[in-house]
Amino acid sequence: MAGKLYGIGVGPGDPELLTLKAARLIGEADIVAYPMNKAGKSVAFQIASTHIMENCETFGFYVPMSTDRRAANLAYDEAATRLRQYLDAGKKVVCLCEGDAFLYGSFVYIFERLTDEYKIEIIPALPAFVAASAALKIPILTQNEDLQIIPATLDEAILIDKMRTCNNIAIYKIGRHFAKIRQILAKLNLLEKSNLVEYVSQSQQKIIPMAATNEDTRPYFSMIIINRR
Amino acid sequence: MAGKLYGIGVGPGDPELLTLKAARLIGEADIVAYPMNKAGKSVAFQIASTHIMENCETFGFYVPMSTDRRAANLAYDEAATRLRQYLDAGKKVVCLCEGDAFLYGSFVYIFERLTDEYKIEIIPALPAFVAASAALKIPILTQNEDLQIIPATLDEAILIDKMRTCNNIAIYKIGRHFAKIRQILAKLNLLEKSNLVEYVSQSQQKIIPMAATNEDTRPYFSMIIINRR
Repeated sequence: MAGKLYGIGVGPGDPELLTLKAARLIGEADIVAYPMNKAGKSVAFQIASTHIMENCETFGFYVPMSTDRRAANLAYDEAATRLRQYLDAGKKVVCLCEGDAFLYGSFVYIFERLTDEYKIEIIPALPAFVAASAALKIPILTQNEDLQIIPATLDEAILIDKMRTCNNIAIYKIGRHFAKIRQILAKLNLLEKSNLVEYVSQSQQKIIPMAATNEDTRPYFSMIIINRR
Repeated sequence: MAGKLYGIGVGPGDPELLTLKAARLIGEADIVAYPMNKAGKSVAFQIASTHIMENCETFGFYVPMSTDRRAANLAYDEAATRLRQYLDAGKKVVCLCEGDAFLYGSFVYIFERLTDEYKIEIIPALPAFVAASAALKIPILTQNEDLQIIPATLDEAILIDKMRTCNNIAIYKIGRHFAKIRQILAKLNLLEKSNLVEYVSQSQQKIIPMAATNEDTRPYFSMIIINRR
């Protein structure tokens, strides 16, 4: 009998924002797998760590960060190969990921490799933008408003088109696209209605009004929330 | 010394999808307040109930459901008046709400009445659409995709305009707007890419492909998820 794989989002950073279900399943796991960086560090693992039992096997897999997806794809192939071994041995396997597994979550790359072969359950998690809204004390959606969640990676013209009419916007994947996004917000007269939220829900959380930033600002683990109302 | 008010979302329905933080704060509360219907029923209270301590005072306030907001506004005024009394007495007060407090959450109406007077903390929660994505086993956002969250209450022309280009769409507040939404999806050739998710994360959860519905379908506690990819 093959085992079962759980794709578990651990939320935006505060370990207390894990769901009860995620905490329980992490504690029941035979294996906890997680993506890590070159230095062997994993934010998802850190967030989940207090729930991992001593007799649980852990397995970190290094995923290179690059716009060239080939190296990352190879890393996910290798991780999937190892996960297959655990699953074929009938193990209960948890694969962690930051945020929500299916909202820009790294678990999607494991999911698409194994979904035709094994039982997989996705445990939904709290996405960063709701934590940012709570931190800002500005509702993200009220009454008949709409919200657009967009990646900063898109071309300027597409971003402007998407951002032109919606009430609220959450921009993910800021990184090296910060200057471009800042210019677009200035163009659309939205700087005064936008906030940069760094390390949301974590101890080093920082809220910076976009109007107080400049194009040289280097944001970390951040998103931009725009409330047009 | 005035007390503190916590706006706590309890997630989409499964009591295990509460966050650890929400569960802890509900357990520490002096007062737990919650909106209820005419019959005195409250989904939010049911979801949270196992965490409420015996010595905690509970306070349900009836909120009339109607497109005419006047009666509801009066109900929130009255609830706010009572919450002021608890807060002036220095109590730790929790106000529950379904889903996330700031994502179409009823707590917004309490928040806007009390935010200038008292310390309020928002505890973010898992929104229904990520639970729907997990249940469907279809990622809601991958790579450079975008997502639009829209209320079904908008006019047809506005809805069509908003839905024309985005990769993924989550439609909230379906209710009596179901036939209109279904017509729009047919017009945009999106019926085959859409699913109706009822009672997401609850025992009576039901997934119905939109192509298998007709305009007489009467959905309950539901949303529609559209994945264009």
